[in-house]
Amino acid sequence: MTQPPSDSVKHRTRASYTYFLTYRTRWSDNDQYSHMNNSIYYHLFDSIVNTYLIERCGLDPGSQQGKGNIGLVVESHCQFFSPISFPDVVDLGLRVTKLGTSSVSYEVGVFLTGKEGVAAVGGYTHVFVDRESRKSVRIDGEMRNGLNGLYTPTPKL
Amino acid sequence: MTQPPSDSVKHRTRASYTYFLTYRTRWSDNDQYSHMNNSIYYHLFDSIVNTYLIERCGLDPGSQQGKGNIGLVVESHCQFFSPISFPDVVDLGLRVTKLGTSSVSYEVGVFLTGKEGVAAVGGYTHVFVDRESRKSVRIDGEMRNGLNGLYTPTPKL
Amino acid sequence: MTQPPSDSVKHRTRASYTYFLTYRTRWSDNDQYSHMNNSIYYHLFDSIVNTYLIERCGLDPGSQQGKGNIGLVVESHCQFFSPISFPDVVDLGLRVTKLGTSSVSYEVGVFLTGKEGVAAVGGYTHVFVDRESRKSVRIDGEMRNGLNGLYTPTPKL
Amino acid sequence: MTQPPSDSVKHRTRASYTYFLTYRTRWSDNDQYSHMNNSIYYHLFDSIVNTYLIERCGLDPGSQQGKGNIGLVVESHCQFFSPISFPDVVDLGLRVTKLGTSSVSYEVGVFLTGKEGVAAVGGYTHVFVDRESRKSVRIDGEMRNGLNGLYTPTPKL
Repeated sequence: MTQPPSDSVKHRTRASYTYFLTYRTRWSDNDQYSHMNNSIYYHLFDSIVNTYLIERCGLDPGSQQGKGNIGLVVESHCQFFSPISFPDVVDLGLRVTKLGTSSVSYEVGVFLTGKEGVAAVGGYTHVFVDRESRKSVRIDGEMRNGLNGLYTPTPKL
Repeated sequence: MTQPPSDSVKHRTRASYTYFLTYRTRWSDNDQYSHMNNSIYYHLFDSIVNTYLIERCGLDPGSQQGKGNIGLVVESHCQFFSPISFPDVVDLGLRVTKLGTSSVSYEVGVFLTGKEGVAAVGGYTHVFVDRESRKSVRIDGEMRNGLNGLYTPTPKL
Repeated sequence: MTQPPSDSVKHRTRASYTYFLTYRTRWSDNDQYSHMNNSIYYHLFDSIVNTYLIERCGLDPGSQQGKGNIGLVVESHCQFFSPISFPDVVDLGLRVTKLGTSSVSYEVGVFLTGKEGVAAVGGYTHVFVDRESRKSVRIDGEMRNGLNGLYTPTPKL
Repeated sequence: MTQPPSDSVKHRTRASYTYFLTYRTRWSDNDQYSHMNNSIYYHLFDSIVNTYLIERCGLDPGSQQGKGNIGLVVESHCQFFSPISFPDVVDLGLRVTKLGTSSVSYEVGVFLTGKEGVAAVGGYTHVFVDRESRKSVRIDGEMRNGLNGLYTPTPKL
């Protein structure tokens, strides 16, 4: 927790990422300092990760039968480089940085639409569990294929 | 508060509105019933209204000098017709239904992208006040012109 | 939708309500106008209503089996009388204003802890449906008893 | 970013923290997996940190004159050990882990009311800046005194 955050992610570019979604900011994303609140970035991380899992990896999060596997977040983190402010529009880039037996780590880069430099870089680690027992399960089949498709080695500076 | 809600807005179409923005839903918009929570619609109302006020009416909400006029919400309301669920994308349509001396009422229609029928219709009333004194002020100049441009009489069924 | 909001609810007092919860505001409840954003009130309405339904009416919203009945919001509304601002603490008062065959209407009064006058009054209507089919069901048994216990005729001025 | 998260914080107890606030969870804190969404923890971090800064360190975040210093978040992080679910009530514990010339790092422990073990541990780093110029400033006076009062060396296991 207390390691000094690495500076290297500050140099991420759109080329560092594989999958993109564009999000409009919302009025209430801004806190009283008139910029997007730090917590909102994590809402956006969840949004691009789960969109990818639903569209490309067969996740069915709203399954009424309570069957299947779901990803639970066990750690998350973010570094903030420059402010974003409603009504800005942001481009999110996603890549997988680590794919284990039952866990996967994602990195998300947040860019202002039309701007070069990265505004924030963060991510989190999912452990996949059985929805009912909440015990960890092996990632395989469509899920592993989908996540593999997003795996990229850490970009060089 | 206790009047039965009118059924007529259920028949709104995109043609009922003048100004549009498209919003991606977010993972956390869904509550545990796996549909977009009712409160989130109000976050979207705020987003399209304030985007219009900033882009077309000269509002500067983040003014560091604390000068100028701002719109405070005095009542809000919404009727919900069909569910929306992450990762749906929604089209918001906006019109002004009433423009008074210092207050303005907006109506927002929420449509699923690519679908015809309206999923929800709601809105709110802004009273414009001086940012510092919070006393009501006359809407005029660029603000009145911008709001007038969005005024439409109530659509016929 | 377009009826002028009634002024009478402005005179609500704590004595108008039957069930209370106290909520701490959060940093991000304030928008860039440094007061609690209008949408946040609806998050609080959901919180006191569902706490009551879980604690006193047998609601099990997170049922993994996807069984049982749930309440869907079909309309909501609020009137705002005076601002609330983080880190204020608020008292929420809840009453049932109408209890039908499959629907129930709630009213929530929002009070600043330690202050007399009501800051906002709003509420919403739930239609109870079967969780899976999402078809409306009759409210009965523990649910009807619990809701009946909160029913109060509209307070006189 | 890519260091393996430390396991040691898993053993935090209430005795590891100096300042506490109790928060009620909200209905919309739960995502569709029926537990408190990971992003919500960061909203709670912001809430306890800023309450402390306002109550004990002289922060005036809503200053209409736009004067004074404010804390901007430059990195944040969290580890999640056990789920929290609405309508749970949580105790937040806060300590300062590092106090530099213009920056301060906080750690927040999240506990279920009435339970021993820590459910999540996270935090963030504030850099203090002049509100208008957004240039970093020296933390001193009432702010430094207040933050010093919360500084505790890292708890031993």
